[in-house]
Amino acid sequence: MDEQQAWMFIAEALKPKRFEHTKRVVEEAERLQEKFGGDLKRIKYAAIVHDYAKYRDINQMRETVRESAVLPKNLLLYGDELLHAFVGAEYLRSEQGITDELILDAVRYHTTGRKGMTTEEKIVFLADYIEPGRTFKEAAEAREAAAEDLDKGCFKALKNTIIFLASEGESIYPDTFEAYNEIQQNLQR
Amino acid sequence: MDEQQAWMFIAEALKPKRFEHTKRVVEEAERLQEKFGGDLKRIKYAAIVHDYAKYRDINQMRETVRESAVLPKNLLLYGDELLHAFVGAEYLRSEQGITDELILDAVRYHTTGRKGMTTEEKIVFLADYIEPGRTFKEAAEAREAAAEDLDKGCFKALKNTIIFLASEGESIYPDTFEAYNEIQQNLQR
Repeated sequence: MDEQQAWMFIAEALKPKRFEHTKRVVEEAERLQEKFGGDLKRIKYAAIVHDYAKYRDINQMRETVRESAVLPKNLLLYGDELLHAFVGAEYLRSEQGITDELILDAVRYHTTGRKGMTTEEKIVFLADYIEPGRTFKEAAEAREAAAEDLDKGCFKALKNTIIFLASEGESIYPDTFEAYNEIQQNLQR
Repeated sequence: MDEQQAWMFIAEALKPKRFEHTKRVVEEAERLQEKFGGDLKRIKYAAIVHDYAKYRDINQMRETVRESAVLPKNLLLYGDELLHAFVGAEYLRSEQGITDELILDAVRYHTTGRKGMTTEEKIVFLADYIEPGRTFKEAAEAREAAAEDLDKGCFKALKNTIIFLASEGESIYPDTFEAYNEIQQNLQR
């Protein structure tokens, strides 16, 4: 887990604008870790590499899903926006030799969330949603909730994602619903 | 399947306002059946009895779920609004001797929807959402879509239900998500 090296291959994989976003996600993740705990080194590493596959060819990623023994085939039924997260984790494994499953999970679920997220996963998921470059009002709402509680922040992000996708008439990946319902029910207790 | 008898026990089970709603659901269901097919007699019967348990005591219904071998236990984790549909189907079986599973399913899923709905289920689900007494704008949207296509009508109803529940920060029963995604993906084809 060589951070320096990760910054180098990520700088190469991303366009400048997306690289700036990544830097802000890393900083946001560090702030959240300070507040809510979790393994700092792995959070930071996952945040650095989370968008590794952002600019990969969609058809190539779909092909990877079709050929993979581990990637869920139902990804092909949902929006292409999800592919870079799930497929990105596999490319990080095969191309960059990353084997730490906690880091790979944080990359894999950074867009959808999932039921039973670890603190590290929650932090990368939320940092990506609320980093200061996200200027839409839903991000501000999640940022405010995150100032209070990690789950509350994640809940707002999940909730707003569901509302956004449903408003657009887009399909919604099951992991996102499951994460939403789980956190909703935990917060009710 | 004695319609006359169903009207009688439903008139007794419901308050006048809800009984008026039921009459409108039956009429709407008849209109939808004329357009989209399905078994008229069973659609009508299911529409008549769909709110059978609407005024049952919530705690008693929760107790029924806890004791039942067939009712899914996860109902206890979701909004009480769902109970009357699922538990209502069981009460219709045990108290009114209704054994037609197609009718019971149309009652059971009239609030949540589910993946793989029959035409009869879709019609009762949609009629309940768009009957003329539903004056909110989301109902008008679903009504308009239903004029074109049964699945499009159901999709709007599911979509608006998800947006409404998420906006309120309420949990969303998995069947509703699954129905939404399934119809979304079928309509894309």
